[in-house]
Amino acid sequence: MCDTHKSCPAPQKDETKQRVYQKKEFIVNGLKQMVIADGEDRLVDVIRSQLGLTGTKVGCRAGQCGICSVLINGDVKRSCLLKMKNVADGSEIVTIEGIGEADRLHPVQAAWIKYGGAQCGICTPGFIVSAKALLDKNSSPTREEIRDWFKKKRNLCRCTGYKPLVDAVMDAARVIRGELAIEDLLWEFKEGESILGSYAPRPSAVAKVTGRWDFGADVGLKLPPNTLHLGLVQAEVSHANILSIDFSEALKMPGVERVLTAEDVQGTNRINGMAMMPGNKCDGFDRPVICDKKVFMYGDVMAIVCADTPEHARAAAAKVKVELEELPAYMNAREAMADDAIEIHPGIPNVYYEQPTVKGAETAPLFDEAACTAEAHYYTSRQPHLVLEPDVGFSYYDEEGRLTIQSKSICLYLHIDMLCEAVGLKPEEMRFAMNNMGSTFGYKISPTSEGYLAVATMATGRPCYLEFDMKQTITYTGKRSPSHVDIKMAADKDGRISALEYQHIFDHGAYSEWGDLLLFKGNSFIGAGYNIDNIRGFGRLVCTNHAYGTAFRAYGSPQALFASECMIDELAVKMGIDPLEFRYKNVYRPGSTTPTGSTPEVFSLPEMIDWLRPRYQAALEKAKKASTAEKKHGVGISLATYGSGGDFEDASEAWVELQPDGSVTVYNCWQDHGQGADIGTLTTVHEALRPLGVPVEKINFVVNDTSTSPDGGLSAGSRGQVYFGNAMKNACDSMLEAMRKDDGSYRSYDEMVSEGRELLYKGEFSTTEMCTMIDEKTAQGDPLVLFMYGLIMSEVVVDVTTGKTEVKKMTMAIDVGKVINKNAVDGQMLGGLAQGVGFALSEDFEDLSKHTDLLRCGIPYATDIPDEFELKYFENSRELGPFGASGVGELPISSPHASILNAIANAAGVRVRELPATPAKVLAALKK
Amino acid sequence: MCDTHKSCPAPQKDETKQRVYQKKEFIVNGLKQMVIADGEDRLVDVIRSQLGLTGTKVGCRAGQCGICSVLINGDVKRSCLLKMKNVADGSEIVTIEGIGEADRLHPVQAAWIKYGGAQCGICTPGFIVSAKALLDKNSSPTREEIRDWFKKKRNLCRCTGYKPLVDAVMDAARVIRGELAIEDLLWEFKEGESILGSYAPRPSAVAKVTGRWDFGADVGLKLPPNTLHLGLVQAEVSHANILSIDFSEALKMPGVERVLTAEDVQGTNRINGMAMMPGNKCDGFDRPVICDKKVFMYGDVMAIVCADTPEHARAAAAKVKVELEELPAYMNAREAMADDAIEIHPGIPNVYYEQPTVKGAETAPLFDEAACTAEAHYYTSRQPHLVLEPDVGFSYYDEEGRLTIQSKSICLYLHIDMLCEAVGLKPEEMRFAMNNMGSTFGYKISPTSEGYLAVATMATGRPCYLEFDMKQTITYTGKRSPSHVDIKMAADKDGRISALEYQHIFDHGAYSEWGDLLLFKGNSFIGAGYNIDNIRGFGRLVCTNHAYGTAFRAYGSPQALFASECMIDELAVKMGIDPLEFRYKNVYRPGSTTPTGSTPEVFSLPEMIDWLRPRYQAALEKAKKASTAEKKHGVGISLATYGSGGDFEDASEAWVELQPDGSVTVYNCWQDHGQGADIGTLTTVHEALRPLGVPVEKINFVVNDTSTSPDGGLSAGSRGQVYFGNAMKNACDSMLEAMRKDDGSYRSYDEMVSEGRELLYKGEFSTTEMCTMIDEKTAQGDPLVLFMYGLIMSEVVVDVTTGKTEVKKMTMAIDVGKVINKNAVDGQMLGGLAQGVGFALSEDFEDLSKHTDLLRCGIPYATDIPDEFELKYFENSRELGPFGASGVGELPISSPHASILNAIANAAGVRVRELPATPAKVLAALKK
Repeated sequence: MCDTHKSCPAPQKDETKQRVYQKKEFIVNGLKQMVIADGEDRLVDVIRSQLGLTGTKVGCRAGQCGICSVLINGDVKRSCLLKMKNVADGSEIVTIEGIGEADRLHPVQAAWIKYGGAQCGICTPGFIVSAKALLDKNSSPTREEIRDWFKKKRNLCRCTGYKPLVDAVMDAARVIRGELAIEDLLWEFKEGESILGSYAPRPSAVAKVTGRWDFGADVGLKLPPNTLHLGLVQAEVSHANILSIDFSEALKMPGVERVLTAEDVQGTNRINGMAMMPGNKCDGFDRPVICDKKVFMYGDVMAIVCADTPEHARAAAAKVKVELEELPAYMNAREAMADDAIEIHPGIPNVYYEQPTVKGAETAPLFDEAACTAEAHYYTSRQPHLVLEPDVGFSYYDEEGRLTIQSKSICLYLHIDMLCEAVGLKPEEMRFAMNNMGSTFGYKISPTSEGYLAVATMATGRPCYLEFDMKQTITYTGKRSPSHVDIKMAADKDGRISALEYQHIFDHGAYSEWGDLLLFKGNSFIGAGYNIDNIRGFGRLVCTNHAYGTAFRAYGSPQALFASECMIDELAVKMGIDPLEFRYKNVYRPGSTTPTGSTPEVFSLPEMIDWLRPRYQAALEKAKKASTAEKKHGVGISLATYGSGGDFEDASEAWVELQPDGSVTVYNCWQDHGQGADIGTLTTVHEALRPLGVPVEKINFVVNDTSTSPDGGLSAGSRGQVYFGNAMKNACDSMLEAMRKDDGSYRSYDEMVSEGRELLYKGEFSTTEMCTMIDEKTAQGDPLVLFMYGLIMSEVVVDVTTGKTEVKKMTMAIDVGKVINKNAVDGQMLGGLAQGVGFALSEDFEDLSKHTDLLRCGIPYATDIPDEFELKYFENSRELGPFGASGVGELPISSPHASILNAIANAAGVRVRELPATPAKVLAALKK
Repeated sequence: MCDTHKSCPAPQKDETKQRVYQKKEFIVNGLKQMVIADGEDRLVDVIRSQLGLTGTKVGCRAGQCGICSVLINGDVKRSCLLKMKNVADGSEIVTIEGIGEADRLHPVQAAWIKYGGAQCGICTPGFIVSAKALLDKNSSPTREEIRDWFKKKRNLCRCTGYKPLVDAVMDAARVIRGELAIEDLLWEFKEGESILGSYAPRPSAVAKVTGRWDFGADVGLKLPPNTLHLGLVQAEVSHANILSIDFSEALKMPGVERVLTAEDVQGTNRINGMAMMPGNKCDGFDRPVICDKKVFMYGDVMAIVCADTPEHARAAAAKVKVELEELPAYMNAREAMADDAIEIHPGIPNVYYEQPTVKGAETAPLFDEAACTAEAHYYTSRQPHLVLEPDVGFSYYDEEGRLTIQSKSICLYLHIDMLCEAVGLKPEEMRFAMNNMGSTFGYKISPTSEGYLAVATMATGRPCYLEFDMKQTITYTGKRSPSHVDIKMAADKDGRISALEYQHIFDHGAYSEWGDLLLFKGNSFIGAGYNIDNIRGFGRLVCTNHAYGTAFRAYGSPQALFASECMIDELAVKMGIDPLEFRYKNVYRPGSTTPTGSTPEVFSLPEMIDWLRPRYQAALEKAKKASTAEKKHGVGISLATYGSGGDFEDASEAWVELQPDGSVTVYNCWQDHGQGADIGTLTTVHEALRPLGVPVEKINFVVNDTSTSPDGGLSAGSRGQVYFGNAMKNACDSMLEAMRKDDGSYRSYDEMVSEGRELLYKGEFSTTEMCTMIDEKTAQGDPLVLFMYGLIMSEVVVDVTTGKTEVKKMTMAIDVGKVINKNAVDGQMLGGLAQGVGFALSEDFEDLSKHTDLLRCGIPYATDIPDEFELKYFENSRELGPFGASGVGELPISSPHASILNAIANAAGVRVRELPATPAKVLAALKK
């Protein structure tokens, strides 16, 4: 202890001395409310932190996302922009809590439920508030007026593709005009009926549309008063040696309890990056929790301030002085692969994993004898996930002394494995639980705040909370790894693909986490969907100083298919064959094998093409007619495919338990990032237990907490419905079997108990036995046994004077096996396609001085996404899937960008081969 | 700055290291809610601080008051008692917010409004939750069952006397049984009709019954995150010298920002105690903000910890080491008056103010020639206010740099005067605003937390919050000063009082605040109500080491009338005259004067006695019949009277302003401690503006903030309706005059503006010119010009085996002039009488080791207060009052205790002369 502490003069806190506060009275949701706030504070913080109305969410804090929208005297306002001094005394404020409630929904809320408008739900309150204001002013808006309104009010949605939201407003308007009853919008569960394949709304829908669905930041405001807030001291350079850290000034700042550095990390301080390939020269332990010796990328954390409020934590973090020796920053794969490049992680080559693909005969001779060949270089960008919910988490010791972390983790059990040694705990000393979350699209396969939270709670013993701001969320979470593909394809005179060659380079950023799997997956989808007997490929995984690569919806396939689906088009055009017909000749048919040599489980693609053909031809015709000198219309096709499940080894567990009142409790860790694990769970269990006739309201969930529910694996790779679904179905089957009497009727709870029968049944599902590891030298094997298939058609207009491309319509033929819930699956498709539009045309994360907010990262608004979508399901039942289902979520993002760039080529006659196809790039191509 | 700060090792915070938290999911008001809480935390704190549901209030934290009641799985639970570890996962919790809302009230809520069940409103949510649970179980309860339920569930109310609450439950039950429609309970304002004298509910009623009325502690939870919490270091002895204060350990505790002592007070550190009498030997500047040299009473504050949470502030305060030299503690007037007593405030004699009363002829000869004389010694106890809301306040700098304090102050402007020099500010550098409050009954005429808050915000620049706990609220706020009266009365043969003599000693506790006024007021009500021409009295004001004296509803009169009203009875009995008839002979009639020689403004007492007489005779008859050997029934009478207004000088100001929409804004500082300033303001302005026909919903308030609204004086001494009321009426009259056109119609807002007329009108009212200061040597003068009069009859049963007294019925004849609002005035009467029951039988604050909670201080529950009350208004219009009103609130507490002790004497034949008449005292008297 410091002996002189007593005589320390009180610290001078001039920055807070100046703060003054205003007392105002507002009418909040109809009730008078006194508020005392700093005039410089934002309304959103006062509404949330002071008034406790957490239905209003906070996203970008820059007026770009609209999720904080509220009504002030009837007008939609983004409350993150509004300073308290500008909210007049006496103002009437309406938040989502004032729009409607569970038992008296506003028509907009009811319609939102009907159309699945709330997926993750983070944008929902803002949209509903905004839509209500529109309908208050105009009860007969057109679809275009609705889309324009949402654009004007900056309402962003990252899940739905906007169309369901416009549908919902149209229906709500009908109710307001008296043309529909609100009851017509509400789904009713009918006892005894199956809900499989229905439009049943997800169980969370009502809470989401009424603002009562607490996300991590909402629970964060409801934590014990003892909670500390973390402020991160982050690098603003991309590569450096850390020379010293001085936090003496920070310690003197108001509210500061501790400042932590790498020295305070009690474990190895190295996260387990899940290296799985023997040939990987990096063992996966290259990412520190808190940087000790080096900074590897922009945003790297060097110290953590623990303080009483977030503001104090941030203010003190700014006072920590770090002395750095800057090093050359390699911001892309080419720079990091240069001969003179130093090793980013000393001892590990920057190209740390290589993988050849060798299938069939040597390809060089085949190219020589081919009727036609084509080759090109394609580049996919560092697509940012652009979730609207800033990254958030918190930690505490639970009643069993376990260090508990609640976050946006989509792999609760795995994150224990990834972090425990790093922070110095045994796996059983850690517990992970999921907060309701505003989507991840995969980025939360990587720990973000979890390590800092663990270190901070272990150092202070207190609950700790950390919320990234939007800039941190964008700049300091993983990204889709850019890929460079040099691809070459040969076809015979009949238009059959005879050979494929490629060189594939992934820039996986600063950390190796999950990298070797990415390279494998990327390679295994170049040319996928077609029977290509002869392939020679070579992939390299490269460490750079840019953002670390992580999962993003369809890991690897969007990069791979971009190359092969564009190449297919280029080759077809070169051969004078229609691209759709060229595909028709080559798609998987019985006898075909995938690029890894596996046999597809179903063959849906030919029938999809048959269905699409007349639509395609009509679209081409229409495009031709509509084209003008300035506005060129065009049509593009892409084949979509991805696997459902983890590669090589995958297994899942779930439990069901019979309760005294005849209800059933489901235990699983099907992490829901908005995709609809809740309705998936409900539908699966309801269907599996139909012989028992358990009504939906008697199926309860205990989910997403490693202390209560079993390990079912990741919520990633379109594996959820298959793996969690099968595990649940198997558990239900076991329970039914135990309950079934000889006469075919079922035992009651009391009978089960009196006969001493088990009440809890564990279900497992594994494909590990069916899959094989790939051969290291050829990448051949059976890493996956279930796939999804699709065909995407995009219709675009290219303004050749500006280079701007607009996607007018997207049509998709879909085979995800049996559709478990129509609402959820439609939502996945539309949302995935919309992300494809962004990936194709606008989204990027490259320039650290520019790509720091949603807008400048190119996120699409409603008017950037087509309002016209046509979806057609080909429900080919999967033997392995529960009730015939395959996966869902990754399919629609696997190649829509390729269809759009094919459509641009079709429209404007120019080929853009590097994403995103911004107006500047299109214009440049046109000018060539 | 401390140079070694940087190298200080992080403090070891072992006490927090051990804390673990539980994650649970509850159904809160029908919605799922995840909660992470320490298992040892109380549910009430989690509901309020974490979930932000501030409708549930917190009172005693000991299960005695029930204001924190919630439903857990349908059962009423006091959430302050319930540890989180004992609230089962999955529990259904219903708080007041889940019972009903403004636009869909529960029948209990509607009935609560009808019967004025919410006065201050702090107990309302708990009662309503409790009543709902009762009616859920039993929709046809009897009144006794309701009273027993409230007793069993520990629902305390300090305002209403319980009867209106029982009435409300009976009516709610009728609605639930379908015998009444809920609409039948709701008051409807009818446009154009007068609401003067109506049962119109107070404007705050709906918010109060729905849990949406934010009290200070509720706003406290909604303050800016930067807010500091104060922990007080208080003396646990009653008299001592302070030798040293060491806060080095406290500074090292978690979350601590500063520790403040007297050295940090920037002003004189002496509160202005408002000494007003020239003969006062204390100048009133004897009370420090933070004690510097001495401790004068238990609870005195010696240091203040400023920390991030209340818990941290308290924990650190416990670590401050204070070295004291204990001094003899004088715990009552006799001890402090002893010859060898040292001066408590050095330089000021312990008996610091003396006042003679000299009226009429010398009394000694009159006693010699009297037909009958009687004399006795009476003692009234240190009655605690026992408010259910712990004392609370907060402070911050406002946008104009003013130090702003929001608290339970009932004299906003005056508190600036009392505090500004003490803390070192000019009056214009301070601002006071009132929080909605759970009653004060007068104690907040004294600053409590305000000084600490001012010092803390001035030292830290940050908002500061301080909430006493119930023990602090009871032990460290002012009390009703005990009085010792030696009284002697003489009567002629006709039963006319010929002379009065007394010696009166007030024990005013440790500080002189408001003391000389108390002595004067006390003296001026001994014998009040009767024409006594000849009086010789002598009063002394004594400083002791017990709790400082402060205002408590009817300052001085309850002490004075206890002596004279008991004496009247004793004398009447001695003369063989019926006490009611004895009073009838002597009460004020034209030509009579008050003890200070003033002329009463009306003469209501004879007609009241005429009204009461048949009831009195019937009650006597009934008592006689009902008495048994064990249970003795009896009837007692007392005359009640008090002044309306401040003595000597009193003035008020209020404004009204015409708004563009034709609405009217009222500006006043009529501090509402639950008495109903809101309905008083509304009714007064509505009535004053009836020529204009402004509907009630167009009368808006800007009130109780010195930055917006003018000084109207204290909310004390039954002056509100008269002084604020007249000021508002005068403002309205000025506005009407300016708006009136020649044809008798009124100008619109636009016409007013176009003619350049003022929109804001100031109204004033003053009685200063009508009053005179008393003569120092005789106490004669016209200090007051308005009074209230009443007659109270109590019917009691005394169990002579236990000594326990039960009041069965109270009847009161009331003259408060014109009744402005029946609901509010009824409420004042019943609540005041109920406090009289407590004062008479159970309440006390004397033993510091015992009188530390509500229960042990003797607060009455529903079953301790009669369910039968009869109130009769004699609305003799007052020339000076607005619409003929006089004051209200002090009348019913001025003498009910005397009527009860007279009834005990009537029942059991024994005279108890020291309050409270506990079973032990009654038994002791019986055994004599």
